[in-house]
Amino acid sequence: MMIEKFMRKTVGYAAHSATSKLELFEFRRRDIGKKDVQLEILYCGVCHSDLHTARNEWQNSIYPVVPGHEIVGRVTQVGSEVSGFKVGDLAGVGCLVDSCRVCPDCLDGLEQYCDHETFTYNSPDQHTGKMTYGGYSSHIVVDEHFVLHISDKLELAAVAPLLCAGITTYSPLRHWNVGSNSKVAIVGLGGLGHMAVKLAHAMGAHVVLFTTSPEKIADAKRLGADEVVLSKNPDEMKVHRKSFDFILNTVAASHNLDVFTELLKRDGTMCLNGVPAFPHQSPSIFNLIFKRRQIAGSLIGGIKETQEMLDFCAEHQITSDIEIIPIQQINTAYERMLKGDVKYRFVIDMATLKLD
Amino acid sequence: MMIEKFMRKTVGYAAHSATSKLELFEFRRRDIGKKDVQLEILYCGVCHSDLHTARNEWQNSIYPVVPGHEIVGRVTQVGSEVSGFKVGDLAGVGCLVDSCRVCPDCLDGLEQYCDHETFTYNSPDQHTGKMTYGGYSSHIVVDEHFVLHISDKLELAAVAPLLCAGITTYSPLRHWNVGSNSKVAIVGLGGLGHMAVKLAHAMGAHVVLFTTSPEKIADAKRLGADEVVLSKNPDEMKVHRKSFDFILNTVAASHNLDVFTELLKRDGTMCLNGVPAFPHQSPSIFNLIFKRRQIAGSLIGGIKETQEMLDFCAEHQITSDIEIIPIQQINTAYERMLKGDVKYRFVIDMATLKLD
Repeated sequence: MMIEKFMRKTVGYAAHSATSKLELFEFRRRDIGKKDVQLEILYCGVCHSDLHTARNEWQNSIYPVVPGHEIVGRVTQVGSEVSGFKVGDLAGVGCLVDSCRVCPDCLDGLEQYCDHETFTYNSPDQHTGKMTYGGYSSHIVVDEHFVLHISDKLELAAVAPLLCAGITTYSPLRHWNVGSNSKVAIVGLGGLGHMAVKLAHAMGAHVVLFTTSPEKIADAKRLGADEVVLSKNPDEMKVHRKSFDFILNTVAASHNLDVFTELLKRDGTMCLNGVPAFPHQSPSIFNLIFKRRQIAGSLIGGIKETQEMLDFCAEHQITSDIEIIPIQQINTAYERMLKGDVKYRFVIDMATLKLD
Repeated sequence: MMIEKFMRKTVGYAAHSATSKLELFEFRRRDIGKKDVQLEILYCGVCHSDLHTARNEWQNSIYPVVPGHEIVGRVTQVGSEVSGFKVGDLAGVGCLVDSCRVCPDCLDGLEQYCDHETFTYNSPDQHTGKMTYGGYSSHIVVDEHFVLHISDKLELAAVAPLLCAGITTYSPLRHWNVGSNSKVAIVGLGGLGHMAVKLAHAMGAHVVLFTTSPEKIADAKRLGADEVVLSKNPDEMKVHRKSFDFILNTVAASHNLDVFTELLKRDGTMCLNGVPAFPHQSPSIFNLIFKRRQIAGSLIGGIKETQEMLDFCAEHQITSDIEIIPIQQINTAYERMLKGDVKYRFVIDMATLKLD
């Protein structure tokens, strides 16, 4: 049993209902266990999932909700059995803080598919009996298995989004063997899409970005796209029919998947990263059958793979394009995200918590 | 240029419109080219595609339509450059009679995915400038590349359905590596499903057949299913959640795919063999994302693979369960097929053509 008085007092920002704004919230982290690492959080990225959960759009929020799963910071304390981290290290935490460790998914290093994983926020916490609280906060205590090493060679604030947007796109690109012989389509240029373009480009692929927004063309090319296609233009789409090895579709809004599946070569896969609030139009089975194509899904990435991604990004000097905000602007940032007014990720400077 | 008078006079059964019954029809096959094989057709299986095409249900029929692409017979003549067949050999022809031979799909032995393949019937025929006529006929002339060797160790009539129902199920089972360590679901026990059960069983898999019909349970077990599940019973379905490596879904009628995708393990694939006339309910993307599952399609099989399947069936003594009919009963057989009143494939005894 944890003893309440030993728990760390923490400050953060929480939503207390689906309709209330996020505001200052004090809570306690668990005391540090033998295998735990405590981080002072320096930066936290703002993912669309944060907004979905704060506003209970997935109907599973238990309030208060402290969002945030793109966490980078500095180690301030370690448990007696921690071997991989020491005080002063840069470290990160992504979407997961625990899993069962014994199921086939965990044993394969794919903890994100464990049936008993613990998400970084709004997830039952076996240590406290409450829900987990995320990275919009001053510090966090996490088992070292779920803590990542962060390079000091990159801009720290811009590394934060790698912990979700980075790994969510890196994992499927790797799983479906994207490399220098691949022609890859990235659908959508948002937080995920802009990371996917950078990563696929660094993997050596020929990258084609699909967007509905002409104003994104120049930016997509700057980020690493070899070509940009306006997906509402059938003539532009036609040029790419049956030509892609892999499509990473980062668009969560309902749309017609068939215009993309028909761009796949025989045996090609379109992987979806987003769950639409309303179902996509039912995909054409004909499109799948006549070229043995596949539609798949992929969820974030495992811990080992997340470290591999962070190391890959350090090697290739890849970070997210970000706009740093003080925590006091988080509610405004959510409104701007809904309008697509962010290039390409808000990151909260956690030092600003002290201004409250 | 072919000279009409040299062309082989052929008798067969054709539909002359979407609403007319099939009836006796005389036409000419092309003269035998250097690489052609002529078969006297002994048996022809009756595939649901035959009915779809005879009745223009895919809106692409050009009349007259002579259906039939599950053809077995005996070689009666060979061209001067034919090396693989001689007069008197047993031989078969499936869904394809030509392809471009030079595209990546053809070069990979996957002619069924060639953009310029010629189907055995209702397909533009480069040799005659007309449409191809299928196996409901006395004989056929086919390039030897598309002619299969048939074992004399099996009941010939019962081999015919292997040329479509057999290869259509064998190809995905092999492509997705079904073997002795696999737990495989077969959805639907019709012409395709009953072959899939036999083949997956022979490959050593643990086979679970899903059906909506309690009266099919005993038959499914006789055919090789280790377990049979009534898919309308949620409790029975629940037992198999997250347990299958592969699902082969042979049901073409629109249905809820989600009840099956959730039965897949992480990284499992559900392959669909049938194009529904009305779209399936849009599948849950959540189901795909949370276990990196895939929905795929598969079309018949390549020529090399079809020979491999025929050899596998000869080795394992696998044929289709059939009901032999005279050609004069083909219209009645179609009506019975629509009611599911066939176990599990009608095969036409082509000797009965002489009765007309």
